[in-house]
Amino acid sequence: MQEEPIAFSAESYFATQPAPPSLAEHIAGVKEFVHRQVSQNRNVVLVTSGGTTVPLELNVVRFLDNFSAGTRGATSAEYFLEAGYAVIFMHRQFSLQPFSRHYSHSTNPFLDLLTVEDDAVGVAADKRAGADLLAVLTAYKRVQTAGTLHTLTFVTVNDYLWLLRAVSQELSVLRRRAMYYLAAAVSDFFLPRQKMSEHKIQSGKGSLHIEMDQVPKILKPMVEEWTPDGYIVSFKLETEERLLVPKARAALERYGHQVVIGNELHTRKWQVMFVERKRKPLPPLPPGVEEEATLEAGNPELETTAQEEVPAAASNVLPTTSTEDGDAAQGSQTTAETAATEETSVPAPPPPPKSPTNNTNDSMTFVESWLRIPNTPTVTGTPQVKEKEIEEDIVAELVRRHALWINSAG
Amino acid sequence: MQEEPIAFSAESYFATQPAPPSLAEHIAGVKEFVHRQVSQNRNVVLVTSGGTTVPLELNVVRFLDNFSAGTRGATSAEYFLEAGYAVIFMHRQFSLQPFSRHYSHSTNPFLDLLTVEDDAVGVAADKRAGADLLAVLTAYKRVQTAGTLHTLTFVTVNDYLWLLRAVSQELSVLRRRAMYYLAAAVSDFFLPRQKMSEHKIQSGKGSLHIEMDQVPKILKPMVEEWTPDGYIVSFKLETEERLLVPKARAALERYGHQVVIGNELHTRKWQVMFVERKRKPLPPLPPGVEEEATLEAGNPELETTAQEEVPAAASNVLPTTSTEDGDAAQGSQTTAETAATEETSVPAPPPPPKSPTNNTNDSMTFVESWLRIPNTPTVTGTPQVKEKEIEEDIVAELVRRHALWINSAG
Repeated sequence: MQEEPIAFSAESYFATQPAPPSLAEHIAGVKEFVHRQVSQNRNVVLVTSGGTTVPLELNVVRFLDNFSAGTRGATSAEYFLEAGYAVIFMHRQFSLQPFSRHYSHSTNPFLDLLTVEDDAVGVAADKRAGADLLAVLTAYKRVQTAGTLHTLTFVTVNDYLWLLRAVSQELSVLRRRAMYYLAAAVSDFFLPRQKMSEHKIQSGKGSLHIEMDQVPKILKPMVEEWTPDGYIVSFKLETEERLLVPKARAALERYGHQVVIGNELHTRKWQVMFVERKRKPLPPLPPGVEEEATLEAGNPELETTAQEEVPAAASNVLPTTSTEDGDAAQGSQTTAETAATEETSVPAPPPPPKSPTNNTNDSMTFVESWLRIPNTPTVTGTPQVKEKEIEEDIVAELVRRHALWINSAG
Repeated sequence: MQEEPIAFSAESYFATQPAPPSLAEHIAGVKEFVHRQVSQNRNVVLVTSGGTTVPLELNVVRFLDNFSAGTRGATSAEYFLEAGYAVIFMHRQFSLQPFSRHYSHSTNPFLDLLTVEDDAVGVAADKRAGADLLAVLTAYKRVQTAGTLHTLTFVTVNDYLWLLRAVSQELSVLRRRAMYYLAAAVSDFFLPRQKMSEHKIQSGKGSLHIEMDQVPKILKPMVEEWTPDGYIVSFKLETEERLLVPKARAALERYGHQVVIGNELHTRKWQVMFVERKRKPLPPLPPGVEEEATLEAGNPELETTAQEEVPAAASNVLPTTSTEDGDAAQGSQTTAETAATEETSVPAPPPPPKSPTNNTNDSMTFVESWLRIPNTPTVTGTPQVKEKEIEEDIVAELVRRHALWINSAG
């Protein structure tokens, strides 16, 4: 007997799935942190990072996972801290974290920094004043002293969804000064608790069958209910560059948030695309100019505003002149070590409207801008401190846009 | 159309599934390491640790995983090194490793050990001569100097199987002096490469269907072909204590290796069960004494041999007097942080024979011994250096049994 999958809305999800036991305690910590940042007049960004799991058994041994070392999130968190933001770093247990990410056990073992002499532990002579360790450690101590980093961990997609809702609600007191940087790789499918006992793994004829339901889309209630004034940035990871624009646009139309950062699996370390809706809806355009309106080169109003209020942060942000900018993807094969760090979605979204007039909002248009750094692939593993990281420019650009957006509040 | 699952033997598996690209390079390193240990007259143990993944897509974003932080393997590796063994530590990328496991990023961040003063990095005053850090670091440096630890990483179950076969074949030159401590949590199911394109995740009606095939049982060819003289220890993790004995016996009968260490999910930090076959087959016993023969209190021959050749290492190894020793499991709820570290299997094995006479080998009997340490549950996370770890006694007991077994070679 085939059971009909349940279509979960966010509302029915939270009404039927159990909250993680430690939620209240974690949220008390967040409340205190947010209160302190408000009193110190800081912007706060929630950075989500790493992959969520889907447990397949109540006594969890097996689970479905999304590949993510957490590089994008951990790296970006450091740059947000440097830019003066307070950061709530909500990450998958054991995924990379800001600062310690530079000393991954596999590629740069921290025990090699230390020495034993005369029964005392010391730092190896060549590391004591080395720029890399000193810079990382100095930044780490500064953040500790300032109290601007608060860490939360999740494992399952259920942990993640409950935490995201509760943290968003806490952060909503900051109104426009709260940013959400949703870089976690979130599962699309899950096994509802109510089905879990029925769904214990069957091994008939030596093969395994798993049937799961879709995770509700939570960006919509996040935008409309949980934190209506928040500045929300989501990620789209694709394996085909040509899908970035249509998928990013579809997400912006569907959820109504501020920015989608699109990236392609093999090139995401040195190029990403920012996609925004045009801020002022235009009246419907007559046939013949539709295509131009949709794909216009930039948003002069936004650029102008930017120059008036905040100098452009990232000089390598290039507004595109079309959705297909003609560059071949420069990707080399990505190995497991450097695999996906962002939200992915498998079910194909409805095809994007060919022109604004196909849209429910007749005047919806989009602005796409590429952000690129020189492609200098690192050796596999942890990026070295001194190498240029694209997250530096992503964060600078978002900080710029966020400032514009705060200031444009009417 | 339902496709019939393929039943893979180890042979057909390796004939049809692609070897990892770096296999030859890794094995060259192992060969060199083994050669050096042979020349230095050391026993070598292969420790496998952490969970294997099953990728669900060729462009890997989603995968099935087995929960394992790698605590059992990483901890045991340290004690094997201390006992004078050379260790090949074959672990899941990013799972815990010997020595660095004490400074997990989440629970005991190593950056907190360091200070910045006058633009130089130092060690915090209270840590410089602290026993914990000093002991870990001293052991780490000693192992580095001796060159007795060789690390290999895997991600997928395919990586694991290819590596295990190749490493076993290299280690087989050590004959009885090679030990295998198979603590990795290995997937039971996988997606054959040939099916992978057909098996891309389907999202019909908003639900996900996955169909997989069984991973071949590789202990049998390992015992019979790859390393026929090796001392092979496998793990069984169950959630019901009463299943430990029948499942461990079934594994020993089926594969013919030396020891199964059984452990129950909630109590595995302070008790495990050693299960061995009786070494000399007995003639079939008349009805009425069968049950006693099967479940006898100990193996006097083994105990005697032990006292003659090597003093018993672990004073808390208690041979049981029956398969059900009457102790209630003392488990508290295990959280995701401390979840399964050992091989698990879901398909129920054939029920164990009720008495030796039901067996294909009429005289096969087993010896079960509990190994226990006091139950002092630690706070969640990394064990502290000074707390008693059950792996210390597990390794001591295995080292003792391995020595007996080497010496008993005819």
